[in-house]
Amino acid sequence: MVEQFVVGVDVGGQTSKIGVVNAAGEILSQSVIRSDVYGSDADAFLAALADAIKANIADSGKEGQIKGVGVGAPNANYYTGTVSYAPNLAWAADKEVKFAEELSAKLGGIPVTLTNDANAAAVGEMTYGVAQNLKHFIMITLGTGVGSGIIVNGQLLYGHDGFAGELGHTKVQENGRLCGCGGKGCLEAYCSATGVARTAREILDTTEEPSLLRSLDNITSKDVYDAAKEGDAVAMKIFDFTARLLGKSLANFVSFSSPQAIVLFGGLARAKEFLYEPMMEAMNENLLHQWKGKIQILFSSLKESDAAILGASSLAW
Amino acid sequence: MVEQFVVGVDVGGQTSKIGVVNAAGEILSQSVIRSDVYGSDADAFLAALADAIKANIADSGKEGQIKGVGVGAPNANYYTGTVSYAPNLAWAADKEVKFAEELSAKLGGIPVTLTNDANAAAVGEMTYGVAQNLKHFIMITLGTGVGSGIIVNGQLLYGHDGFAGELGHTKVQENGRLCGCGGKGCLEAYCSATGVARTAREILDTTEEPSLLRSLDNITSKDVYDAAKEGDAVAMKIFDFTARLLGKSLANFVSFSSPQAIVLFGGLARAKEFLYEPMMEAMNENLLHQWKGKIQILFSSLKESDAAILGASSLAW
Repeated sequence: MVEQFVVGVDVGGQTSKIGVVNAAGEILSQSVIRSDVYGSDADAFLAALADAIKANIADSGKEGQIKGVGVGAPNANYYTGTVSYAPNLAWAADKEVKFAEELSAKLGGIPVTLTNDANAAAVGEMTYGVAQNLKHFIMITLGTGVGSGIIVNGQLLYGHDGFAGELGHTKVQENGRLCGCGGKGCLEAYCSATGVARTAREILDTTEEPSLLRSLDNITSKDVYDAAKEGDAVAMKIFDFTARLLGKSLANFVSFSSPQAIVLFGGLARAKEFLYEPMMEAMNENLLHQWKGKIQILFSSLKESDAAILGASSLAW
Repeated sequence: MVEQFVVGVDVGGQTSKIGVVNAAGEILSQSVIRSDVYGSDADAFLAALADAIKANIADSGKEGQIKGVGVGAPNANYYTGTVSYAPNLAWAADKEVKFAEELSAKLGGIPVTLTNDANAAAVGEMTYGVAQNLKHFIMITLGTGVGSGIIVNGQLLYGHDGFAGELGHTKVQENGRLCGCGGKGCLEAYCSATGVARTAREILDTTEEPSLLRSLDNITSKDVYDAAKEGDAVAMKIFDFTARLLGKSLANFVSFSSPQAIVLFGGLARAKEFLYEPMMEAMNENLLHQWKGKIQILFSSLKESDAAILGASSLAW
C-alpha cells in the first residue's frame, strides 16, 4: 500500500502555518502565509490558503498520497466545518464562513476537517507533548487572544454544538475591560498578549514609578518581558497582576472538569519565570481542599507552530 | 426470576431521605431521618442511616430483593466511595468518611454506590424529569449550598478524581463573602438559600428603604420569597441581585461545556417568578454571539426529594 500523509494547518490572526505530516508526526515541509491581508474577503483568503497547501504538498513530493487536511482556526466548529464571528479574523468577523466545504472544493475534493485552534493545540500536546500521559487536562493558549481546549477522558469536549471550551471569554472582572467579543471583563482582555499591554498602560498611567517601559510608545507584551528580565519593578508588577488573575481563573476551571493538569501554550507562556509562582499561589488559594497542591501547571514543550500543525493534522487521519 | 429493587438515599445537611424504588422508577416506600444530630460522629450517623434503610426495605416488603443502594451526598466521590471535608455535614466536615464501604458493612454486604448529591439529581432529572431529551446540560442545585452535576454526551462528568462539577465554589466576586469552604467570593455564598439571607441583611443594613423584612429577626430565603410575593421592593431587589449574579455565572459555565440547557433545582429555584427574567438577561448579556438567546434555563419538574432519591437509586442498578 502507498504510504499516506496529511496536511495540518494552523490559522491565526496574523499568519497561517501549513505542514505536510507523516504518520509518525514528523513535519516534512512547512510554509507560512499571511491571514490578515484579505480584508473581509473570505474567498480570497481561502484561495490563497489552497494555493499554499498545494505548493506545500508539491514541495513534500507527496502529491496523490494526501489523505486529508486538518485545520485549527479561531471560532472554528468541528461539527459544522464553519468559522464564524471570529473577532481576530477580518474575513470571518461578522459572518459564518463554510471553511471546510469551500477549502475542500478548492483542493479538488481532498477532505478537510476543522476544529478550534486551541482544541488542535490540545490534541497536539496530548499526542506529542507534555500531555502525553494525561487523560484529563485543559489547554490554555495565551496568544493575541486566550483560547482553550478541554480534554476529558482523553477526548476533546465539544459540547452540544461544537463550541465548548471558550474559557477566554469567562468573566473575571466586574465591569471590566471591553473585550474583542463585545463582552466586558473577559479573561482574554487581561491574560492575553494584548491584555498584558493594556495592563502595562494602565499601571504606567496610574503610578509615578520609574520604569524602562515609560520611554516606549507602543508597549507590547514582549517589551514587558524584556523589561522584567532587566529587573524592572513595574514590569514585574504587570506579570504579577496577570498571573494572579489567571491563577484564580484556573481554579474556577478546575472546579468544572477536575483535570490533572493545566497546560499553558503560546507567546505569553514564554514568560514562565515571571508567571509560574504567583499563578500557582493564586490558583491554590482559590481551590477547594481536595485539589490544593495537587493540580499541575505545565508549559508546552512543543514548538508553537508545530503543536498547532501537528494537532490539526491529527484530525485528518 | 424474582423482581429486583434498589434503594435511593439523598443525604442532605439537615435530613436524609430514603426510598425503595422499582425498575420503572416508582418509589414504593419513603422515609426521612435527621442528618444533623450526630455531631462529628460519622459512625453514629451511618448506623442510624443503615437502620432506617433496613426499616424502609421491611416496609416495602422487598427484603431479599434489593440489588443495591445508591447514595447522593455532598462532597461524595464516585470513584472512592468517600464523603470528605463536607462543610455542611458535621460528621464529615474535617475528615474523609469511607461511606460506601462502612454503610455496606452495616447493611450485611448490600453493595453501596455513592455520588455527589447534585450529580444524583442530574441523573434523576435526565431519567425522569425535564432533561429527559438532553445529552448536554448542567444541573445547578440551589439549596443550603450550591451544587452542580455536569452532563456531557449523556454522561456525568467526573474528572480525573471524581470531584468534577463544584461550580458552587467558582469565584464570582472580587474579595467577596467568606464561604463555608474557606474561600472568598464563591457562588455558593451568594446564590444559595443562605446567600440570599446574607444579601437581605446587607441590603437592609445599607439602605433606609422600608420593607416587610425589617421586622424579622432571622431572615430566611423563604421570608424574602414571601415578601416579594407581597410586592416588597427590597425583596425584589434581593432576588434581582441574586438572579443577575447567577445568570452571569451560568454564562461562564456555558463557555465551558456548551450545554443545551441549564436545569435549576432546589428550594431557591421555587422563586422562579422573581429569578427567571433577570437571570436570563444577565446570562445572555454575558454569552458569546453563538449562544445568545439559544441556551435554555429549565426548572426541575420533579418533587425535590424524588429527584435526588431517584437519581441516587439509578446508580444502584
